[in-house]
Amino acid sequence: MSDDLNEQHRQKMVRRKEAHDRKLAAATQEKGLIIVNTGAGKGKTTASLGIVFRALGHGLKVGVVQFTKGAIATGEAALAKKLAPQLEWYVLGEGFTWETQDRERDVANAHQAWQTAVRLLRDPIFDLVVLDELNIALRYDYLSLDEVLAELKGKREMLHIVVTGRNAKAELVELADLVTDMTLVKHPFRSGIKPQRGIEF
Amino acid sequence: MSDDLNEQHRQKMVRRKEAHDRKLAAATQEKGLIIVNTGAGKGKTTASLGIVFRALGHGLKVGVVQFTKGAIATGEAALAKKLAPQLEWYVLGEGFTWETQDRERDVANAHQAWQTAVRLLRDPIFDLVVLDELNIALRYDYLSLDEVLAELKGKREMLHIVVTGRNAKAELVELADLVTDMTLVKHPFRSGIKPQRGIEF
Repeated sequence: MSDDLNEQHRQKMVRRKEAHDRKLAAATQEKGLIIVNTGAGKGKTTASLGIVFRALGHGLKVGVVQFTKGAIATGEAALAKKLAPQLEWYVLGEGFTWETQDRERDVANAHQAWQTAVRLLRDPIFDLVVLDELNIALRYDYLSLDEVLAELKGKREMLHIVVTGRNAKAELVELADLVTDMTLVKHPFRSGIKPQRGIEF
Repeated sequence: MSDDLNEQHRQKMVRRKEAHDRKLAAATQEKGLIIVNTGAGKGKTTASLGIVFRALGHGLKVGVVQFTKGAIATGEAALAKKLAPQLEWYVLGEGFTWETQDRERDVANAHQAWQTAVRLLRDPIFDLVVLDELNIALRYDYLSLDEVLAELKGKREMLHIVVTGRNAKAELVELADLVTDMTLVKHPFRSGIKPQRGIEF
Protein backbone atom coordinates (compact mmCIF):
# COMPACT_ATOMS: atom_id res chain seq x y z
CA MET A 1 0.00 0.00 0.00
CA SER A 2 2.86 2.33 0.80
CA ASP A 3 4.34 1.38 -2.58
CA ASP A 4 1.07 2.34 -4.27
CA LEU A 5 1.09 5.68 -2.52
CA ASN A 6 4.67 6.31 -3.62
CA GLU A 7 3.93 5.36 -7.21
CA GLN A 8 0.81 7.53 -7.35
CA HIS A 9 2.80 10.40 -5.89
CA ARG A 10 5.59 9.89 -8.42
CA GLN A 11 3.23 9.87 -11.41
CA LYS A 12 1.45 12.97 -10.18
CA MET A 13 4.76 14.78 -9.66
CA VAL A 14 6.04 13.72 -13.11
CA ARG A 15 2.93 15.29 -14.66
CA ARG A 16 3.32 18.40 -12.54
CA LYS A 17 6.99 18.76 -13.47
CA GLU A 18 6.14 18.37 -17.17
CA ALA A 19 3.54 21.12 -16.92
CA HIS A 20 6.00 23.34 -15.04
CA ASP A 21 8.82 22.67 -17.52
CA ARG A 22 6.53 23.48 -20.46
CA LYS A 23 5.65 26.83 -18.90
CA LEU A 24 9.31 27.53 -18.13
CA ALA A 25 10.37 26.67 -21.69
CA ALA A 26 7.74 29.06 -23.07
CA ALA A 27 9.03 31.84 -20.80
CA THR A 28 12.16 32.98 -22.57
CA GLN A 29 12.10 36.75 -22.32
CA GLU A 30 14.68 38.50 -20.12
CA LYS A 31 13.53 41.85 -18.78
CA GLY A 32 13.47 43.96 -15.70
CA LEU A 33 10.16 43.57 -13.93
CA ILE A 34 7.75 46.12 -12.56
CA ILE A 35 6.39 44.51 -9.40
CA VAL A 36 3.49 45.86 -7.34
CA ASN A 37 2.73 44.73 -3.78
CA THR A 38 -0.65 46.04 -2.73
CA GLY A 39 -3.66 45.07 -0.60
CA ALA A 40 -4.84 45.65 2.97
CA GLY A 41 -2.83 42.79 4.50
CA LYS A 42 0.68 42.73 5.92
CA GLY A 43 3.69 41.86 3.82
CA LYS A 44 3.78 44.56 1.16
CA THR A 45 6.93 46.24 2.47
CA THR A 46 8.41 43.07 3.97
CA ALA A 47 8.04 41.20 0.66
CA SER A 48 9.90 44.02 -1.09
CA LEU A 49 12.60 43.79 1.60
CA GLY A 50 12.82 40.08 0.89
CA ILE A 51 13.43 40.83 -2.79
CA VAL A 52 16.14 43.30 -1.69
CA PHE A 53 17.68 40.55 0.45
CA ARG A 54 17.65 38.11 -2.47
CA ALA A 55 18.99 40.67 -4.96
CA LEU A 56 21.85 41.65 -2.64
CA GLY A 57 22.71 37.96 -2.35
CA HIS A 58 23.12 37.89 -6.14
CA GLY A 59 25.39 40.94 -6.05
CA LEU A 60 22.86 43.34 -7.54
CA LYS A 61 22.98 47.05 -6.70
CA VAL A 62 19.81 48.11 -4.90
CA GLY A 63 18.18 51.44 -4.05
CA VAL A 64 15.24 51.90 -1.68
CA VAL A 65 13.19 55.09 -1.35
CA GLN A 66 10.72 55.20 1.53
CA PHE A 67 7.90 57.63 0.74
CA THR A 68 6.10 57.75 4.10
CA LYS A 69 7.83 56.06 6.97
CA GLY A 70 10.51 58.55 7.96
CA ALA A 71 9.22 59.18 11.47
CA ILE A 72 9.64 55.54 12.48
CA ALA A 73 13.12 54.27 13.32
CA THR A 74 12.63 50.93 11.62
CA GLY A 75 14.73 47.82 12.00
CA GLU A 76 15.26 47.63 8.28
CA ALA A 77 16.94 51.05 8.19
CA ALA A 78 19.41 49.87 10.85
CA LEU A 79 20.42 46.82 8.84
CA ALA A 80 20.47 48.85 5.62
CA LYS A 81 23.39 50.90 6.97
CA LYS A 82 25.43 47.73 7.39
CA LEU A 83 24.73 46.71 3.79
CA ALA A 84 25.80 50.01 2.22
CA PRO A 85 27.08 50.82 -0.35
CA GLN A 86 25.63 47.83 -2.24
CA LEU A 87 22.33 49.00 -0.80
CA GLU A 88 21.38 52.69 -0.81
CA TRP A 89 18.46 53.54 1.43
CA TYR A 90 16.63 56.86 1.46
CA VAL A 91 14.02 57.68 4.11
CA LEU A 92 12.20 60.68 2.72
CA GLY A 93 8.69 60.59 4.16
CA GLU A 94 7.77 61.82 7.61
CA GLY A 95 5.53 59.02 8.78
CA PHE A 96 1.97 58.27 7.89
CA THR A 97 -0.28 60.99 6.57
CA TRP A 98 -2.23 60.93 9.81
CA GLU A 99 0.94 61.86 11.71
CA THR A 100 1.67 65.05 9.82
CA GLN A 101 -1.99 66.04 9.30
CA ASP A 102 -0.60 68.60 6.91
CA ARG A 103 -1.31 68.00 3.25
CA GLU A 104 1.10 70.63 1.94
CA ARG A 105 3.95 69.15 3.95
CA ASP A 106 3.05 65.66 2.70
CA VAL A 107 3.02 66.91 -0.89
CA ALA A 108 6.42 68.56 -0.46
CA ASN A 109 7.84 65.35 1.08
CA ALA A 110 6.39 63.21 -1.70
CA HIS A 111 7.95 65.46 -4.34
CA GLN A 112 11.31 65.33 -2.64
CA ALA A 113 11.12 61.53 -2.43
CA TRP A 114 10.09 61.32 -6.08
CA GLN A 115 13.10 63.44 -7.13
CA THR A 116 15.37 60.94 -5.40
CA ALA A 117 13.45 58.05 -6.95
CA VAL A 118 13.90 59.50 -10.45
CA ARG A 119 17.63 59.93 -9.84
CA LEU A 120 17.98 56.25 -8.88
CA LEU A 121 15.72 55.02 -11.69
CA ARG A 122 17.86 56.84 -14.26
CA ASP A 123 21.24 55.88 -12.78
CA PRO A 124 22.48 52.80 -14.68
CA ILE A 125 24.36 51.57 -11.60
CA PHE A 126 21.10 50.34 -10.06
CA ASP A 127 19.64 46.90 -10.86
CA LEU A 128 16.66 47.16 -8.50
CA VAL A 129 14.83 50.18 -7.10
CA VAL A 130 12.14 49.85 -4.42
CA LEU A 131 9.61 52.68 -4.13
CA ASP A 132 8.12 51.92 -0.74
CA GLU A 133 4.61 53.32 -0.16
CA LEU A 134 4.61 55.19 -3.46
CA ASN A 135 1.01 54.01 -3.84
CA ILE A 136 0.01 56.16 -0.84
CA ALA A 137 1.46 59.28 -2.47
CA LEU A 138 -0.43 58.46 -5.67
CA ARG A 139 -3.67 57.67 -3.87
CA TYR A 140 -3.74 61.08 -2.18
CA ASP A 141 -2.69 62.81 -5.41
CA TYR A 142 0.51 64.06 -3.81
CA LEU A 143 2.21 63.18 -7.08
CA SER A 144 1.06 63.22 -10.69
CA LEU A 145 0.08 59.70 -11.75
CA ASP A 146 0.86 60.52 -15.37
CA GLU A 147 4.36 61.69 -14.50
CA VAL A 148 5.06 58.55 -12.44
CA LEU A 149 3.70 56.21 -15.14
CA ALA A 150 5.75 57.95 -17.83
CA GLU A 151 8.91 57.52 -15.76
CA LEU A 152 8.19 53.81 -15.15
CA LYS A 153 7.34 53.19 -18.80
CA GLY A 154 10.62 54.77 -19.86
CA LYS A 155 12.73 52.69 -17.48
CA ARG A 156 15.91 50.93 -18.57
CA GLU A 157 15.09 47.49 -20.02
CA MET A 158 16.79 45.39 -17.31
CA LEU A 159 15.93 47.55 -14.29
CA HIS A 160 13.62 45.92 -11.73
CA ILE A 161 11.22 48.20 -9.86
CA VAL A 162 9.09 47.31 -6.85
CA VAL A 163 6.22 49.61 -5.84
CA THR A 164 4.41 49.04 -2.54
CA GLY A 165 1.37 50.40 -0.73
CA ARG A 166 -2.38 49.91 -0.49
CA ASN A 167 -4.79 50.91 -3.21
CA ALA A 168 -2.47 50.64 -6.18
CA LYS A 169 -3.85 52.68 -9.07
CA ALA A 170 -5.45 50.60 -11.84
CA GLU A 171 -3.12 52.16 -14.43
CA LEU A 172 -0.09 51.01 -12.43
CA VAL A 173 -1.48 47.47 -12.11
CA GLU A 174 -2.04 47.50 -15.85
CA LEU A 175 1.58 48.52 -16.49
CA ALA A 176 3.12 46.05 -14.00
CA ASP A 177 4.45 42.57 -14.79
CA LEU A 178 3.83 41.03 -11.38
CA VAL A 179 1.11 42.14 -9.00
CA THR A 180 0.27 40.62 -5.64
CA ASP A 181 -2.58 41.60 -3.36
CA MET A 182 -1.65 40.94 0.26
CA THR A 183 -5.03 39.96 1.67
CA LEU A 184 -5.68 40.30 5.37
CA VAL A 185 -6.90 37.04 6.86
CA LYS A 186 -6.16 37.66 10.54
CA HIS A 187 -4.42 40.50 12.37
CA PRO A 188 -3.16 40.48 15.98
CA PHE A 189 -4.14 44.12 16.55
CA ARG A 190 -7.73 42.92 16.79
CA SER A 191 -6.83 40.55 19.62
CA GLY A 192 -5.22 43.32 21.71
CA ILE A 193 -1.64 42.43 20.79
CA LYS A 194 0.80 45.35 20.35
CA PRO A 195 2.90 45.79 17.21
CA GLN A 196 6.02 43.79 18.08
CA ARG A 197 9.53 45.25 17.69
CA GLY A 198 11.60 43.46 15.07
CA ILE A 199 8.50 42.04 13.42
CA GLU A 200 6.10 44.83 12.57
CA PHE A 201 8.48 47.79 12.76
CA MET B 1 -9.82 76.48 -2.42
CA SER B 2 -6.40 74.97 -1.73
CA ASP B 3 -6.87 76.06 1.90
CA ASP B 4 -10.20 74.21 1.98
CA LEU B 5 -8.57 71.07 0.63
CA ASN B 6 -5.84 71.28 3.26
CA GLU B 7 -8.31 71.81 6.06
CA GLN B 8 -10.53 68.94 4.91
CA HIS B 9 -7.45 66.73 4.69
CA ARG B 10 -6.32 67.78 8.16
CA GLN B 11 -9.69 67.02 9.76
CA LYS B 12 -9.88 63.64 8.06
CA MET B 13 -6.36 62.75 9.22
CA VAL B 14 -7.08 63.91 12.78
CA ARG B 15 -10.04 61.51 12.88
CA ARG B 16 -7.98 58.72 11.35
CA LYS B 17 -5.16 59.24 13.83
CA GLU B 18 -7.65 59.18 16.73
CA ALA B 19 -9.08 55.87 15.51
CA HIS B 20 -5.56 54.47 15.07
CA ASP B 21 -4.44 55.68 18.51
CA ARG B 22 -7.52 54.14 20.14
CA LYS B 23 -6.74 50.77 18.58
CA LEU B 24 -3.08 51.09 19.57
CA ALA B 25 -3.99 51.95 23.18
CA ALA B 26 -6.25 48.88 23.35
CA ALA B 27 -3.43 46.66 22.06
CA THR B 28 -1.25 46.24 25.12
CA GLN B 29 -0.23 42.61 25.08
CA GLU B 30 3.42 41.68 24.39
CA LYS B 31 3.88 38.27 22.88
CA GLY B 32 5.73 36.38 20.25
CA LEU B 33 3.61 36.05 17.14
CA ILE B 34 2.80 33.06 14.99
CA ILE B 35 2.68 34.45 11.46
CA VAL B 36 1.45 32.55 8.41
CA ASN B 37 2.12 33.67 4.83
CA THR B 38 0.05 31.61 2.44
CA GLY B 39 -1.81 31.91 -0.88
CA ALA B 40 -1.05 31.27 -4.54
CA GLY B 41 0.63 34.62 -5.16
CA LYS B 42 4.27 35.66 -4.86
CA GLY B 43 5.67 37.13 -1.67
CA LYS B 44 5.24 34.38 0.91
CA THR B 45 8.94 33.63 1.27
CA THR B 46 10.07 37.14 0.41
CA ALA B 47 7.80 38.66 3.07
CA SER B 48 9.32 36.31 5.64
CA LEU B 49 12.79 37.37 4.45
CA GLY B 50 11.70 40.97 4.95
CA ILE B 51 10.77 40.18 8.55
CA VAL B 52 14.20 38.54 8.95
CA PHE B 53 15.79 41.71 7.57
CA ARG B 54 13.82 43.88 10.01
CA ALA B 55 14.49 41.59 12.99
CA LEU B 56 18.23 41.51 12.28
CA GLY B 57 18.16 45.30 12.19
CA HIS B 58 16.79 45.26 15.74
CA GLY B 59 19.54 42.90 16.87
CA LEU B 60 17.30 39.84 17.21
CA LYS B 61 18.72 36.35 16.75
CA VAL B 62 17.10 34.63 13.78
CA GLY B 63 16.92 31.06 12.49
CA VAL B 64 15.60 30.02 9.08
CA VAL B 65 14.81 26.43 8.06
CA GLN B 66 14.02 25.88 4.38
CA PHE B 67 11.85 22.79 3.95
CA THR B 68 11.88 22.43 0.17
CA LYS B 69 14.21 24.72 -1.69
CA GLY B 70 17.56 23.02 -1.22
CA ALA B 71 18.20 22.32 -4.87
CA ILE B 72 18.10 25.99 -5.81
CA ALA B 73 21.14 28.13 -5.06
CA THR B 74 19.12 31.12 -4.00
CA GLY B 75 20.34 34.65 -3.58
CA GLU B 76 19.04 34.75 -0.04
CA ALA B 77 21.31 31.87 0.99
CA ALA B 78 24.33 33.79 -0.32
CA LEU B 79 23.51 36.87 1.74
CA ALA B 80 22.62 34.73 4.74
CA LYS B 81 26.23 33.58 5.00
CA LYS B 82 27.37 37.17 5.34
CA LEU B 83 24.88 37.77 8.16
CA ALA B 84 25.91 34.75 10.26
CA PRO B 85 26.06 34.13 13.19
CA GLN B 86 23.21 36.53 14.03
CA LEU B 87 21.33 34.66 11.33
CA GLU B 88 21.45 30.86 11.15
CA TRP B 89 20.18 29.42 7.88
CA TYR B 90 19.46 25.76 7.22
CA VAL B 91 18.63 24.48 3.74
CA LEU B 92 17.21 21.01 4.34
CA GLY B 93 14.84 20.34 1.46
CA GLU B 94 15.89 19.16 -1.98
CA GLY B 95 13.82 21.34 -4.21
CA PHE B 96 10.16 21.13 -5.02
CA THR B 97 8.32 17.85 -4.71
CA TRP B 98 8.10 17.65 -8.48
CA GLU B 99 11.90 17.67 -8.69
CA THR B 100 12.50 14.62 -6.47
CA GLN B 101 9.37 12.71 -7.63
CA ASP B 102 10.13 10.43 -4.70
CA ARG B 103 7.72 10.59 -1.80
CA GLU B 104 9.86 8.59 0.61
CA ARG B 105 12.83 10.87 0.05
CA ASP B 106 10.61 13.92 0.51
CA VAL B 107 9.28 12.49 3.77
CA ALA B 108 12.81 11.78 5.04
CA ASN B 109 13.91 15.32 4.10
CA ALA B 110 10.88 16.85 5.79
CA HIS B 111 11.56 14.93 9.00
CA GLN B 112 15.19 16.00 9.00
CA ALA B 113 14.16 19.62 8.48
CA TRP B 114 11.57 19.35 11.24
CA GLN B 115 14.19 18.02 13.69
CA THR B 116 16.30 21.10 13.02
CA ALA B 117 13.22 23.31 13.34
CA VAL B 118 12.39 21.81 16.75
CA ARG B 119 15.95 22.38 17.94
CA LEU B 120 15.76 26.08 16.99
CA LEU B 121 12.24 26.51 18.39
CA ARG B 122 13.37 25.16 21.77
CA ASP B 123 16.70 27.02 21.93
CA PRO B 124 16.13 30.20 23.99
CA ILE B 125 18.83 32.04 22.04
CA PHE B 126 16.41 32.50 19.09
CA ASP B 127 13.94 35.39 18.93
CA LEU B 128 12.54 34.54 15.48
CA VAL B 129 12.36 31.24 13.60
CA VAL B 130 11.19 31.05 9.98
CA LEU B 131 9.86 27.70 8.75
CA ASP B 132 9.94 28.25 5.02
CA GLU B 133 7.56 26.05 2.98
CA LEU B 134 6.53 24.05 6.05
CA ASN B 135 2.97 24.26 4.67
CA ILE B 136 4.01 22.11 1.70
CA ALA B 137 5.30 19.36 4.01
CA LEU B 138 2.03 19.49 5.95
CA ARG B 139 -0.12 19.54 2.83
CA TYR B 140 1.42 16.33 1.50
CA ASP B 141 1.31 14.72 4.97
CA TYR B 142 5.08 14.43 5.06
CA LEU B 143 4.84 15.54 8.70
CA SER B 144 2.23 14.98 11.38
CA LEU B 145 0.03 18.07 11.65
CA ASP B 146 -0.75 17.25 15.30
CA GLU B 147 2.93 17.07 16.17
CA VAL B 148 3.67 20.39 14.45
CA LEU B 149 0.70 22.14 16.08
CA ALA B 150 1.68 20.81 19.53
CA GLU B 151 5.21 22.16 19.08
CA LEU B 152 3.95 25.59 17.98
CA LYS B 153 1.40 25.76 20.81
CA GLY B 154 4.12 24.98 23.34
CA LYS B 155 6.50 27.66 22.04
CA ARG B 156 8.28 30.10 24.34
CA GLU B 157 6.06 33.14 25.05
CA MET B 158 8.21 35.73 23.27
CA LEU B 159 9.38 33.63 20.33
CA HIS B 160 8.16 34.77 16.91
CA ILE B 161 7.52 32.09 14.29
CA VAL B 162 6.84 32.59 10.58
CA VAL B 163 5.42 29.71 8.53
CA THR B 164 5.22 30.00 4.75
CA GLY B 165 3.77 28.03 1.86
CA ARG B 166 0.57 27.57 -0.10
CA ASN B 167 -2.48 25.83 1.28
CA ALA B 168 -1.91 26.51 4.97
CA LYS B 169 -3.90 24.02 7.05
CA ALA B 170 -7.05 25.46 8.65
CA GLU B 171 -5.83 24.39 12.11
CA LEU B 172 -2.62 26.38 11.64
CA VAL B 173 -4.55 29.46 10.49
CA GLU B 174 -6.72 29.06 13.58
CA LEU B 175 -3.65 28.94 15.85
CA ALA B 176 -1.82 31.86 14.18
CA ASP B 177 -1.91 35.51 15.27
CA LEU B 178 -1.30 37.04 11.85
CA VAL B 179 -2.28 35.43 8.58
CA THR B 180 -1.86 36.89 5.11
CA ASP B 181 -3.00 35.37 1.86
CA MET B 182 -0.74 36.46 -0.97
CA THR B 183 -3.23 36.66 -3.81
CA LEU B 184 -2.04 36.39 -7.38
CA VAL B 185 -3.21 39.32 -9.47
CA LYS B 186 -0.75 39.13 -12.35
CA HIS B 187 2.28 36.92 -13.02
CA PRO B 188 4.98 37.50 -15.67
CA PHE B 189 5.30 33.74 -16.40
CA ARG B 190 2.02 34.04 -18.28
CA SER B 191 3.49 36.72 -20.55
CA GLY B 192 6.50 34.60 -21.50
CA ILE B 193 8.94 36.30 -19.15
CA LYS B 194 11.56 34.08 -17.49
CA PRO B 195 12.06 34.00 -13.72
CA GLN B 196 14.62 36.75 -13.19
CA ARG B 197 17.79 36.22 -11.17
CA GLY B 198 17.91 38.29 -8.00
CA ILE B 199 14.15 38.77 -8.02
CA GLU B 200 12.44 35.40 -8.21
CA PHE B 201 15.34 33.19 -7.11
